[in-house]
Amino acid sequence: MSQLDSNWSLVDDSKVTPKGFLFAGISAGLKASNKKDLALILAPEGSIFSGMFTQSIVRASCVDICEERIKTTSGFVRAILINSGQANACTGNLGIQHFQIATGKIAELLGIKEEEVLMCSTGVIGVPIQIDDLVKNLPNLVNDLKCNNFQNAAEAILTTDLTLKTVLIETVIQGRKIKIAGIAKGSGMIYPNMATMLAFLTCDAAIQKEEWDKMISIAVKKSFNAISVDGETSTNDSFVAINAGEKIDKRFYPTIQKGIDIVCQILAKNIARDGEGANCLLEVSVQGAKNTDDAIMVAKSICNSSLVKTAIHGCDPNWGRIISAAGNSGVKFCLNDFDLYIGKHQILENGKLKQYDSNKVSNYIRSKMKGRYLVDDIVEIMINLNSGQSTGTAWGCDLSKKYVEINSEYTT
Amino acid sequence: MSQLDSNWSLVDDSKVTPKGFLFAGISAGLKASNKKDLALILAPEGSIFSGMFTQSIVRASCVDICEERIKTTSGFVRAILINSGQANACTGNLGIQHFQIATGKIAELLGIKEEEVLMCSTGVIGVPIQIDDLVKNLPNLVNDLKCNNFQNAAEAILTTDLTLKTVLIETVIQGRKIKIAGIAKGSGMIYPNMATMLAFLTCDAAIQKEEWDKMISIAVKKSFNAISVDGETSTNDSFVAINAGEKIDKRFYPTIQKGIDIVCQILAKNIARDGEGANCLLEVSVQGAKNTDDAIMVAKSICNSSLVKTAIHGCDPNWGRIISAAGNSGVKFCLNDFDLYIGKHQILENGKLKQYDSNKVSNYIRSKMKGRYLVDDIVEIMINLNSGQSTGTAWGCDLSKKYVEINSEYTT
Repeated sequence: MSQLDSNWSLVDDSKVTPKGFLFAGISAGLKASNKKDLALILAPEGSIFSGMFTQSIVRASCVDICEERIKTTSGFVRAILINSGQANACTGNLGIQHFQIATGKIAELLGIKEEEVLMCSTGVIGVPIQIDDLVKNLPNLVNDLKCNNFQNAAEAILTTDLTLKTVLIETVIQGRKIKIAGIAKGSGMIYPNMATMLAFLTCDAAIQKEEWDKMISIAVKKSFNAISVDGETSTNDSFVAINAGEKIDKRFYPTIQKGIDIVCQILAKNIARDGEGANCLLEVSVQGAKNTDDAIMVAKSICNSSLVKTAIHGCDPNWGRIISAAGNSGVKFCLNDFDLYIGKHQILENGKLKQYDSNKVSNYIRSKMKGRYLVDDIVEIMINLNSGQSTGTAWGCDLSKKYVEINSEYTT
Repeated sequence: MSQLDSNWSLVDDSKVTPKGFLFAGISAGLKASNKKDLALILAPEGSIFSGMFTQSIVRASCVDICEERIKTTSGFVRAILINSGQANACTGNLGIQHFQIATGKIAELLGIKEEEVLMCSTGVIGVPIQIDDLVKNLPNLVNDLKCNNFQNAAEAILTTDLTLKTVLIETVIQGRKIKIAGIAKGSGMIYPNMATMLAFLTCDAAIQKEEWDKMISIAVKKSFNAISVDGETSTNDSFVAINAGEKIDKRFYPTIQKGIDIVCQILAKNIARDGEGANCLLEVSVQGAKNTDDAIMVAKSICNSSLVKTAIHGCDPNWGRIISAAGNSGVKFCLNDFDLYIGKHQILENGKLKQYDSNKVSNYIRSKMKGRYLVDDIVEIMINLNSGQSTGTAWGCDLSKKYVEINSEYTT
């Protein structure tokens, strides 16, 4: 159990999930690989759901219906069905019918209303869901619901991901143990504003809808909306956050906010780290900005630059590309105020080149490229715009030939 | 001599350039390769200059000074010095000094004012110009000025380009031969809004400053601002257009506009086609948009999508990625109105998938990938948004492993 901040610590045992939530994850044969492809999360009665969805004009119908159901139920939803394999995007009326069939059946099996069931899909765009396989397996899925099936659910939502993305944290507030858990999928097509990703968060401290929406929006801005794998956004991106259980005193809301932030950032970083073909996590921190939005925009612009990403891949401390990307972010700053560090190496001070050992900086980057999923795989770029007090961070990854290979050789 | 439209035809002999303009291109040892790296264009007295420059916040000082000199002289500039090898960007006061030394010396050699000389630089960012080598070679450069040195000048402005980019067209207006010539450089870092590119246009029909500015702005929007290699913009992007000679009757301005459009589009397409690691030119045409800006934005968004570009590279007719990129363009449209063609193959009609032979579409793309610089290397994607009367086109290229190789292995 490792401490994350003064309140929250990581729970190693993924079986002890937030109180009252049940999870399931099985294979329904939707993926040719026969890997798990169907997940279900059941929340306790009275749970509050909040959702944030893709901002693309081309949206899967499932996204529209989820958004609508959260609205019409005022957030009092009960279950989320998630399938991988087919995205059910651009499938017209058939897509809507499949959504209704699947959520209707789940509602029947769980004895709840159809409007209380959401459905998220991920996989190939334009291909209808294998609805017969799916429906046939719904009873198995419901039978599989357990509080300790968290990992199975996480596994069932993956597509091209190479790693499971789960996080479980806890704190004690007024003698009561509070837990927040999150699962996510996503590797390619990840860009600011919720790109091909699904993420689900559960929390066992009850917080009223309006406050919960606000908290989720704050957390998403600093996490899922601050990552980029390839500048692409998708038709299906969804993040649903659920709270349930006993109410918590308002004065502890900041602690809960911090917990949500932590869970979302860990998931977001793991998505960026799992970027297709990636070898490291790129973390760009911007300080001294006029406001948080500016800071994040500059950081994102750098994380999203193909030239920066290929330079990092080549272990090349190519600061020209970094400031060039910053200059294209749309944020106004003065180059004469610009400080730039790569790792602990200062490259620019007030826009002027410092004496630095290019080999050392290159070796610093190289030391992070030993492969993914090491604790120490983070290439850190730090910028100070020296024009304000605000800070922001964004995450990305290097761009490798492997990315091109993955995306030119397979239909996604 | 091939006909381009009812008025303009291509001139094959690049030695017959617009009347009154002189060109030079030599090697001054600024490039380690000893290739040509210094160019000069001298315009006749009374010429009108118009310039469009990078919109990045991080601009080379040479760009600022060029813009200022065009302004203070009301466009009555006479010469442009261009060096490749060092971009003279982010070089602080030294960069400004080098600009002044070089343009001062040119002015002295040509017997004109320093303010009448512009200077554009391209190459590695942050590295000062090898000013001694440059200055030493200015007398040779001036001696080299000839009306038929057009190709040498075009050669001297290249950096990572694999091909010369020149175009020369002519028409006859009221018995008078009018010529427009253009040269350009650019391959990586090319994005809407004048990304790492330099281009220079000369025309021997005199048009007053205000009208000329307007014409240039219209042409740039439909050409240099409609191409994307990797979504990057640069510190030094500049396009300077010069007219000189006898005045032309206003009723022929539309013909001149068309000529400028043609020259800019040919240069822009050749920049996109020469994208680092590219194997084909991607041309996305959007019809039925509410306005031209919307049409170009949708087309650009598709040309700029890494997932579309890798799919094209893999000869994969991945229409999901195409509409997904369109959906992220920021332009509002209804998927139910969306028609999509790849080549002559219709994929979507009113947002619904048509029966199409995936192998045939794949073979169509493959047939364009035989390598660059073939006449028939254009992969055409056509979209109809069916929501208006406006059209727009953007150009890009496929994304290959070679792009990653070029940009991860060399400092640019």
